[in-house]
This record gives sequence, C-alpha cells and structure tokens, in this order.
Amino acid sequence: MKIVDMRIHSIAIADPPLRSSYGLHAPYALRTIVELESDDSVIGITETYGGDAPARALEAIRPQVIGRSPYRLTGFLSAMVEGEGSGIDRSQTYLVPGENPLDQTTRTYAAIEVACLDLIGKSVGQPVCDLIGGRVRGEVAFSAYPFFKHTGGGGEGGDLREDEYGEVLSPEALVREVKQMVACYGFSSIKIKGGVLEPDLEIEAVKLLRQELGPDVPLRIDPNSAWTVDTSVRVGKALAEELSGGGYLEDPTSGLENMAEVRKRLMAAGITTPLATNVAVTSFGDIPRAVELDAVQIILCDHHYWGGMRQVQHLANLCKTFGVGLSMHSNSHLGVSLMAMAHVAAATPHLAYACDTHYPWQSEEDEVAAGGRVSIVNGCVTIPDEPGLGLELDYDQLARGRERFEKHPYRKRDDEAEMRKHIDPQWKRILPRW
Amino acid sequence: MKIVDMRIHSIAIADPPLRSSYGLHAPYALRTIVELESDDSVIGITETYGGDAPARALEAIRPQVIGRSPYRLTGFLSAMVEGEGSGIDRSQTYLVPGENPLDQTTRTYAAIEVACLDLIGKSVGQPVCDLIGGRVRGEVAFSAYPFFKHTGGGGEGGDLREDEYGEVLSPEALVREVKQMVACYGFSSIKIKGGVLEPDLEIEAVKLLRQELGPDVPLRIDPNSAWTVDTSVRVGKALAEELSGGGYLEDPTSGLENMAEVRKRLMAAGITTPLATNVAVTSFGDIPRAVELDAVQIILCDHHYWGGMRQVQHLANLCKTFGVGLSMHSNSHLGVSLMAMAHVAAATPHLAYACDTHYPWQSEEDEVAAGGRVSIVNGCVTIPDEPGLGLELDYDQLARGRERFEKHPYRKRDDEAEMRKHIDPQWKRILPRW
Repeated sequence: MKIVDMRIHSIAIADPPLRSSYGLHAPYALRTIVELESDDSVIGITETYGGDAPARALEAIRPQVIGRSPYRLTGFLSAMVEGEGSGIDRSQTYLVPGENPLDQTTRTYAAIEVACLDLIGKSVGQPVCDLIGGRVRGEVAFSAYPFFKHTGGGGEGGDLREDEYGEVLSPEALVREVKQMVACYGFSSIKIKGGVLEPDLEIEAVKLLRQELGPDVPLRIDPNSAWTVDTSVRVGKALAEELSGGGYLEDPTSGLENMAEVRKRLMAAGITTPLATNVAVTSFGDIPRAVELDAVQIILCDHHYWGGMRQVQHLANLCKTFGVGLSMHSNSHLGVSLMAMAHVAAATPHLAYACDTHYPWQSEEDEVAAGGRVSIVNGCVTIPDEPGLGLELDYDQLARGRERFEKHPYRKRDDEAEMRKHIDPQWKRILPRW
Repeated sequence: MKIVDMRIHSIAIADPPLRSSYGLHAPYALRTIVELESDDSVIGITETYGGDAPARALEAIRPQVIGRSPYRLTGFLSAMVEGEGSGIDRSQTYLVPGENPLDQTTRTYAAIEVACLDLIGKSVGQPVCDLIGGRVRGEVAFSAYPFFKHTGGGGEGGDLREDEYGEVLSPEALVREVKQMVACYGFSSIKIKGGVLEPDLEIEAVKLLRQELGPDVPLRIDPNSAWTVDTSVRVGKALAEELSGGGYLEDPTSGLENMAEVRKRLMAAGITTPLATNVAVTSFGDIPRAVELDAVQIILCDHHYWGGMRQVQHLANLCKTFGVGLSMHSNSHLGVSLMAMAHVAAATPHLAYACDTHYPWQSEEDEVAAGGRVSIVNGCVTIPDEPGLGLELDYDQLARGRERFEKHPYRKRDDEAEMRKHIDPQWKRILPRW
C-alpha cells in the first residue's frame, strides 16, 4: 500500500470572543484538515493547527510522503521528532501553541502520523487506539473548559454565530456558563481559563463554583502565566481546598524556576495542590530540568505538538516513571482532532485526568466530520466501533470551511492583535500582569 | 479477528559451558516458544525465557488471551506493565534475567505482545517493525559476545555438541575466540563477558584485543558486578583508551550507589568511559534514582523483560530525554528472539549501540525457525520483507526441542549449581569477588 495523494485543506471555523492572558480569540479559528489517499483508495484524515505556516510545512514534505507506505512513513520521517535531546527550551510562554517555530517539525510529523494511523486503521478495519497498543478504556473523559468572554458566538459579517453563553466577565456569569456546559455535556471536571480578571475575582469564581457544584467535581484554573510568584502562592493558598480532590493549578506563573518557587512555597505552607503546565514544559527537552526542580507535578500532553500519538505515549511512560501526572491540552478544534485526542487517551494508561477540549466552543455549522458533531455524553467521548479514527469527512462542509478561510484575512492566530482591535487599542500582553 | 488457541512449548537447547560471574551455563539453555492462533488460522509466534516458571505464568493468563483480538489484547493486559511506578528495586544483582519474580508480569506481557504483533503483521502483510512506528533502519547491528569458557559445545549424553571454540580461559584464547566470531559473522563491535578471570588478566585480554583489532572496533567489558568500586575504578583507568570510541564499561560493580561512585572517580580522573547496565537498572522504577546519581550513562534494554517492544520504545525515548545511551541485552536464545530484537531495534531510533546477542553460541541443530538459522552478515541482521517477525516455525525442530526439555532435568537456570557440579563443589557467587 502506497500513499498516492496528499490533500491539505486550510479552513476557518467560527470562534467566540474568548479571553485569556494571551488576549482575545479572533472571530475565526484556523485549522488544517489533511487527507492521505492510498493506491487502493483508502483515505486517512487528520486535523492540525491552521493558517499559512502549518499548511506550508505540510506542503514542504509532500515529496517525502507521496509513494511511501503509511506503515513506514512515520519511521522514515522520524528525524522530525528525534532531533531534540535534553536542554532545548521550547516554552510557550510567549507563543501560542501552533505558532512556535521550534515545534513546527513535531506538529507536522504528528499530523502525518495520525493520518497514517487513520489510513491503516481503515485499511485493516481496526480503530486507531488498537493500533498503538490497544485501548485501556472505551470512553475518554473530557473536562468543561469555561472561558471569560465577550458576547457573541464568533464569525463576522453574514457569518455571525449565535451565542448561547452571552457575556461572561464576572464570577457569577462564569458559574452560569459552567452550569450550562455541564447540563449540555455532562462534564464532571472543570478547567477554568483564568488570567483575565483580577486574581481576587478569579478566586471568587472558583470558590463560587465549588459551592455550586459540591465537593466532588475536580476544579482547575489556568491563568496562562499571568501571575507573579507571590500572586500564584496567594491564589494557591486561597484555593487550597477548592483545587484539592483531583484539581490542579495550571501555569500560574511563567518559567520552570518560578513554577518551582511556587511549588516550594505552597508545600512549605502544607498545600499539596499539584502544579500543571502546558507552557513551561512543551517538549521532551524541557523535562529533565522540570523534574530536577520539581517544578511541575502534571504535564499536559497534546499529540498535535508533542509529535503525535506515540510520542504522547512515550511522554506518559516518562511521566509515570518520574511520578508526574498527565493531563491533556487543547486548542480550538473540530471533531477530527477530538476523536484523535480520544483515541490516544484511550490507549494511554497513565492519562488519568479528564482531557481539556475547546470543542463545545465550536458549532455544528463548521463541523467537517460526516454526520455532524462528535457526541460528548456524561463528559465522555466513546471510542466508536468504526475503523481508524471512526470519522469520514463531509466534503461539502470542508468546502465551506475552505471558503471561510479564503474569504477572511486571518492567516495565523494573534490574540494580542485581536485584543487591540476589539477591546483596547493599547492592549499588550504583560507577563506577569498581576 | 480473535485468538482461538495458545500453544506453549517448553524447549531445551544445547548451550556451551560459558562462564560469568553468575557461574557456569548448564548443558542446556531453556526457552519457551509460544504460538497464538487466530480464528482465521494465522499464527503469531514469540520466544521467551524457558523452564517451568515462565510457562506457568503464560498458562495462567490463558483465560484472558483466548477469545481476544490481538489488536486489543495488549491494552487489555496493560496492567501487567503499568503496575510499577518509581522506586521499586528490581535489580538483577543476584538474580539472572528470567528468574526475577518481580518482573514476571512484564516478561509474560512481552511474550504475548510480540506474538500479537507477529500475528497482526502476518494478518495484514506487514513486518512487525512497521507496526510499531516504522523502521528507521533496515539492518540492525549486533556485537560479538565472547565468553570465557570450558571445552565443549553444550548438550549431554548422546546430544553432545561440537565445539568450534574449545577452551577459552586466557587472554590469548579470548582473542582467538573473537577473531573466529568476527570471521564468521562480521561483527564490528565486541562485548566481552568478564568477571571470570583475575581483573588483571581481563585487562590484558582487552588490551590484546585492541592491539589485534585496531582502533576502530568499539570494545565493552561486562563482569556482571564482580568488582569492588576500587577495582572498577582501577580497571576503568587501565582501559581508558581501550574502551573509548563507542565502547563502555558494563556493570563493573553492583548497585546504583557503587556505580555512581565509580563514575564520579573516573570522571575526576578525566576518564569519560560511559558506564552501562542491565543489572542496576532493569525496570522503569530504577531510573529516577539512576538519573539523579548519574550512576549509568547507558541502559541495556531487552524487550523480553522490559515489557515488550513498545516499552522498549518508551525506554528509548526516556533515555534520549535524559541524555542516557541505549544498548540491548541478550540471553541465550534462538532465531525468534533474535528477529524480535532486530525488529524492535529497527523501529527504535535512539538505539545507537550494536545489540548484544548470544545467538552464535547456539547451533543450527536446535533452531526452531523454518529454513534454519537467521543470518548475521557483516555483524547485522537484515529485516526481512516477510510479514510479522519474518519467521515461521519448523514443527519437527520444535518437537525435538520439547523432547530435549522432557528428557533432561533442567527446569530453571542456575549457573551457581552448574558451577558446583562441574567445576568446583565449593563454588559460591561472591559479590564483589575482586
């Protein structure tokens, strides 16, 4: 079996005006859908970061992809994920995931790996999770991912989307938003995107959530490095109880040294809340120092930028070995990514935390998976019986996504520019802000 | 596809009277060949440790194996390799590989995993290395593995084997043995099994080998923890030049603390010879402390006891991340194991050292692979084009192996007992001996 065609589709999908310490989400999030077609007309699909750079990087390896066996392509391209040893700093403190040039090769490799696995799975009639070691769970838990946000459901011009959540810029509104999400999807873990309001207001939001949801729902808050060490410690102390019981404090501050200092001071105060990260540790090269400093107790994996599903499994094993927990990071995405995330999580025993997902922020109108959106029921995605990822593309929907991409000027994610454009012409990302 | 039968074959294969710090190899080495047969009559095979305990452990999981899909069985059984976190000491200081009860579950799992991968590969027409990430090399380098030994080619009674090497109990004889092996197999790395003669004689042997083989052949010596820290440092200093250029000093002494002390003292003397181990680090649980102490610079993997091919790949990634080298351990084995070792090595980029193999010590007469022995040419095993491991069983040969097993009383490896029986009735394994 040989790959005879690679089709790269740059698409745009409506995205609500979500806020984070990076700034504001643009009216459209960008994604790339890739198809690999074999000489026996089986098509493997994948979804990855969008915009010009990822599509260009994929286009650049076309000569290495065409003519190869999907079984051998990942080995053939392995230098793309094997180049890095220890000591390379790829932190995402200043760069949003998908725009870090240092992990472009791992992102490109991951996209190809997933498409190959989907192609192989469809070719042999097996789900992807059973090609990479076999499922250890048939359902994968995801967490609610509430954001502070402005009014609007994303899109612009004639493409404006409905907004079921409205403006969410207070603790009370956040609680309402979470309740809506839980009612709709049945999530039983909550990850709050913080770093937007004053820390005291975010503390209040978490406390209010704990009150409203009762003691059994794990809560996490992630201000994307918006806080100083002092503020991080203050928040960690204030939320010691709220973040216990399976919750965590994610990237309160930037850099491994600062994270380690927060950890040390919290532990000295008897507070064992684990620190999680997808900013200070984003590649294997970051891990030795992180372990040495005990800077993070949970790493958020993401097959999209860690170099694919097998690299995530390597990461899981490494984390287990060093007593580090594993959770999963997410970006704005559609069903193909969601299903890939579910498959790798299903085949990764150490992934004990519910995974992040932005999926509830996207809409049926933009889904490119045939048959519509992937269901999240009781907070879980069920691994389908169908082979590969379990999804086919809806080519009409894909064409609409391409049209949106062509029609609008967005070519890379820039939350800071969006913030200046829509909210505050002077806005700058300041780290730490508080 | 479902597994409908599991056949477990305990066999005995002639083994020459090889010496090590563990004692003396018995006239027969024990192996287990396992077949998994699917409902569409495809047969996956594997080879693992022999004797009663491994066969019993395999028999015990029969109810979990029968009726399962080979794609899902590894996931279903994953608790067998996922149980261990950090901090569990599984060192092989006193136990030969295959007789350590602490890694019985990982050994059993590995056997099943390889058989499943062979079954899957044969079912879909793909080599095993291309099912686990894809080959990064089509030829896998192995090293010569000279032993000090007594006369004889193994076996007993009417089953005595020819001996092409004769007695090897001096530096000169070892050089002759190596030259014979190199002439026959084309090896370009040499690993000497030491810990048998006085350290000064073993130093002499390595120096003589370096003289005879020239400067380009990497040399390793492995006394299986026979030396004190002082002796290890003395040997390391004496052989600083001989073990440089891709060689290493393997398990000179026992325990991570002692290894770390040897490393520290050698480094202080400006000697950077890496220390390798398959004794002080034999499971993921040993690694955090090993890294912390810089006790070992190279870990010897072995899919047979590390929990299979994917666990070896996890180990490789972990080693790469922490700047630790990776080589491969071997036990007495036949072609099925050799080919499995070659497949996992072919799909493990970080495996940069030539792998150990005892294969030259076994003979055509005992090979259970159809078509006879696997070829080692220019020191390498070539990954065959055939699916799975690339081997089928010769059932007549397998029956002969079972007969040998039934006929002789050996049921577990016990090099100390053999030493007392044949060489010295008072012999005891003393660690450290020198």
